Amino acid sequence: MSCGSPGVPTKAETGREFFTTRTVTEALDGFRPARRTPAEPVPLDRALHRVPVAPVTAPHALPGFARSTVDGYAVRAADTYGVSDGLPGYLQLTGAVLMGPVMDTAPSVAVGPGAAVSMPTGGVLPPGADAVVMIEYTQQVMPGTVEVVRPVAPGEGVVRADEDAAPGAELVPAGRPLRAQDLALLAAAGVTTVTAYARPRVAIFSTGDEVVPPDAATLRPGQVRDATAVALAALVAEAGGEPVPSGIVPDDPRALEAALRAALPASDLIVVSAGSSVGARDETASVVGRLGTIWCHGLAIKPGKPTLLAECDGVPVIGLPGNPRSALVVFRLLGVPLVRLVGGCAESPKGPPPEPAVRARLARDLPSAAGRLDVVQVRVAHGVATPVFGLSALLSVLTAADGYVIIPEEATGLDAGAEVDVTIYR
Amino acid sequence: MSCGSPGVPTKAETGREFFTTRTVTEALDGFRPARRTPAEPVPLDRALHRVPVAPVTAPHALPGFARSTVDGYAVRAADTYGVSDGLPGYLQLTGAVLMGPVMDTAPSVAVGPGAAVSMPTGGVLPPGADAVVMIEYTQQVMPGTVEVVRPVAPGEGVVRADEDAAPGAELVPAGRPLRAQDLALLAAAGVTTVTAYARPRVAIFSTGDEVVPPDAATLRPGQVRDATAVALAALVAEAGGEPVPSGIVPDDPRALEAALRAALPASDLIVVSAGSSVGARDETASVVGRLGTIWCHGLAIKPGKPTLLAECDGVPVIGLPGNPRSALVVFRLLGVPLVRLVGGCAESPKGPPPEPAVRARLARDLPSAAGRLDVVQVRVAHGVATPVFGLSALLSVLTAADGYVIIPEEATGLDAGAEVDVTIYR
Repeated sequence: MSCGSPGVPTKAETGREFFTTRTVTEALDGFRPARRTPAEPVPLDRALHRVPVAPVTAPHALPGFARSTVDGYAVRAADTYGVSDGLPGYLQLTGAVLMGPVMDTAPSVAVGPGAAVSMPTGGVLPPGADAVVMIEYTQQVMPGTVEVVRPVAPGEGVVRADEDAAPGAELVPAGRPLRAQDLALLAAAGVTTVTAYARPRVAIFSTGDEVVPPDAATLRPGQVRDATAVALAALVAEAGGEPVPSGIVPDDPRALEAALRAALPASDLIVVSAGSSVGARDETASVVGRLGTIWCHGLAIKPGKPTLLAECDGVPVIGLPGNPRSALVVFRLLGVPLVRLVGGCAESPKGPPPEPAVRARLARDLPSAAGRLDVVQVRVAHGVATPVFGLSALLSVLTAADGYVIIPEEATGLDAGAEVDVTIYR
Repeated sequence: MSCGSPGVPTKAETGREFFTTRTVTEALDGFRPARRTPAEPVPLDRALHRVPVAPVTAPHALPGFARSTVDGYAVRAADTYGVSDGLPGYLQLTGAVLMGPVMDTAPSVAVGPGAAVSMPTGGVLPPGADAVVMIEYTQQVMPGTVEVVRPVAPGEGVVRADEDAAPGAELVPAGRPLRAQDLALLAAAGVTTVTAYARPRVAIFSTGDEVVPPDAATLRPGQVRDATAVALAALVAEAGGEPVPSGIVPDDPRALEAALRAALPASDLIVVSAGSSVGARDETASVVGRLGTIWCHGLAIKPGKPTLLAECDGVPVIGLPGNPRSALVVFRLLGVPLVRLVGGCAESPKGPPPEPAVRARLARDLPSAAGRLDVVQVRVAHGVATPVFGLSALLSVLTAADGYVIIPEEATGLDAGAEVDVTIYR
């Protein structure tokens, strides 16, 4: 166990459960398993959002040669000092740089004193030149002579050979998921493979005698289709993990223990959606307790209280509430950051970006108990956030919502009209 | 051409180009190609972020049976009216509902007048009962007798059989990318395949004699590796498209025309990163103009002015600036919404979620020209947004940034200390 001391049992509930209750803040700060996935090579065209294990540095200067940033004339800057509209300078046009490699197009053009060479944007600055005058400040008054009406300083109109990156400069940091522009800079540097953390393999179990697969055509009364597993798999993938759908386990402690034992060696994280009955919740906790160390059983969150966090053989285990809505709320808040942690992401702000969010005003009061974090689903329109109420068992509350508002642990509620940050579901 | 009338030529630049300049706002509002991808069946476990072509409705009521939301006792609510701590009611315990299908576990339990049946959370409400009393408000005072100290109303402690969805109710709307909870509700309803718009196939071309593939080990002076294509492919995939890397085309109008003609039949969108020289920009525009209708050539944006929007044989075509930074800025602003449009996404707010964003205060003044939209890369720390300056040719400006601030067309700049929305790169 490497992620802090477990809490002490604080409360006996319904005469059968010992909840080791923690707050969400305590869980996010304190449940920090040491496990990280191994490094693997990833080709650049599959590296979006992958997490480098170490900074990647430039093997050589970028762009590698001085180039023009404008259309104009390569010159010696000193030759333009003091020129103006009233007192133009005159330079001798001695050649032209074309686009493409210099060996193909302009191997021998050089800029001597008093000379100018015509340049396209992006062209290689010829030897001898130290600036490029924009074409707008010139004209060819007669064939072979360029009139210049503005002076340039050395370096003007030019990208230095190492201006995008000096040799050895950091191109991308470790621990931050690669963004599109990071891939571009790596490509520019000729880095076509990145050493990244492997995607965390996340085993996803559902439990419950009443749970049947989503493709069950008809249900008997009391049966429910497994709604949670496919949604958890989607959230795992979105967090950079590799979901491993592991099926439905009956309400039988021996079956669950066997299933978890079998999954541990090949998993970086295990998620169990518990049966929703008290007995099923007990069983998950006692089975997980036999396989490892329970960090908390019970979370001060609504919905989602019957959440279990544990570590078994170095593998973090999350036990989620039985009802799909609570399970998805808790997994977004705690599971997604754990997938990212195990997958090597650095801490915010140098880690993954925040979720999309909008500011809005609350349409009505939201009461909450102090010491408990509430997640309230809302619709958002015209800058107003309207809570979607409904039983915690209802998935339709989640699907009707555009996003959610968090009432933090220290608050006892939020007032109508308060400005709130709404995290938008994506 | 189905997306508005093309603009009129407004400006002759450098004696060779006719820019048909538009603002970004005009382009977002006015360039609206009619093309949509065809519908295809998508299995639920691959449907995250896929866009349904039509609303999906519930084939039957959900959850399909009335179930308990608490641990307690199923009762007839009328039997509890008027009870209190001081004047408890007493009911006869006539059975127990267990979890799992009723045919397996409790086929014959019914609740008559004066009776109570013990219930787990999620259990099927037995015939005759209309409410569930929470266990906290009861005790078994003697075997077979349940004391009740709080009354319940009909429906209390119960999810109705159609409370999550009535038969025929809309489970997910058309046009909005599916979110994790949408998959959950579809799974609960037994919908395991969704009819969604096919991912738009986006052909990505780079042009320029100086451009070489990213895996070129060494460069001659003047050569640059293709940095843009791999980043554009990443942005296309993130927007829900299927990137089709189509290679590097030399600066030869006939080669470009042949390449575009060959790509049109199999593409839903074509993106061309132009060579950065004036000549190369001309060539792209004249080739595209021969194949279809140019909507604009020149966009009032910094960086990114030499942007081309066109439609050829019903396929939208985007010509991007030659330098990778400008190309990526423009593609995020205009290309990503086009990929989504062609892929069937509805308009915001009922379409895709916004990009992640944070509020911050500007560290310094940002000047801008009225009528032009400026995209300014910033670092963000401790609520302060610090601009990252650098030449538009530098990719390192993009990689050093956490996000960007937009100075809208109507503004002439932003003042130091102003509160701004920073869109965070992901």
